[in-house]
Amino acid sequence: MHEEYMKLALAEARKAEAIGEVPIGSVVVHEGQVIASSHNLRETSQNPLTHAEVIAINQASEVLGSWRLEECTLYVTLEPCVMCSGAIVMSRIPHVVYGARDPKGGTVDSLMHLLDEPRFNHRPIVTSGVMEEECSEMLKSFFKALRQRRKNQPID
Amino acid sequence: MHEEYMKLALAEARKAEAIGEVPIGSVVVHEGQVIASSHNLRETSQNPLTHAEVIAINQASEVLGSWRLEECTLYVTLEPCVMCSGAIVMSRIPHVVYGARDPKGGTVDSLMHLLDEPRFNHRPIVTSGVMEEECSEMLKSFFKALRQRRKNQPID
Repeated sequence: MHEEYMKLALAEARKAEAIGEVPIGSVVVHEGQVIASSHNLRETSQNPLTHAEVIAINQASEVLGSWRLEECTLYVTLEPCVMCSGAIVMSRIPHVVYGARDPKGGTVDSLMHLLDEPRFNHRPIVTSGVMEEECSEMLKSFFKALRQRRKNQPID
Repeated sequence: MHEEYMKLALAEARKAEAIGEVPIGSVVVHEGQVIASSHNLRETSQNPLTHAEVIAINQASEVLGSWRLEECTLYVTLEPCVMCSGAIVMSRIPHVVYGARDPKGGTVDSLMHLLDEPRFNHRPIVTSGVMEEECSEMLKSFFKALRQRRKNQPID
């Protein structure tokens, strides 16, 4: 079941990749229905808030008409960063499922454990490593291609 | 100088209080100009992202046309929470000034030190305690009045 929704998040990540954004995708599922789906848009929007998860949380709260995203599961292809982990805590999402780890910026399992912090007033259940290879591979090939393009650029 | 801008943040906090929101206000200053001003709107908007700082960051990035809020100072009446601290890191704001501490949810000095984290790729300068008493008093009187109203409510 998790794989089915992670595939949708991966499809969102591909949309980001197609427009030159770091390929990260997210969906929010509420009672078996996908109520939000989004991808990273930071460069396109030039807005620091437009990580996939924040956009998805924004959409989901609009759909539910509530800042409490109860009975929701957030799927995201990459381990959330500090801002997105914070947005998850603030929206009280009960379950978070992510694909690949982010050793440089992830704050769920890598740098910190912000979703398992007893001093915060919300601690979601976390499922990690769902379709990890596909999620990770998409990012790796994006950055590989980016390095290649930069290497081929003439020096000013 | 910090007090002048904190007074504007306090004026924003008062706007929140007037509509029954927890009184927290924020402004963003860029090269001496106020480019964003906002207040907490969580209950009104029913959107978990609508903390004063996140709204201000959103406005500032629109004004500057960039996700990097360089040469900006963010003023906020209360110590930022985990989501807002994360949004500050992601937007690379170089200077953050806050008023009152938040011992229950603050992640700048109270529960954590997310704005002084060597593993993140941005660490702003933080100035704390500017007009602390006014900022703190506004929150205290808001919660006192809230408790009073609840106490006076008839039991169903």
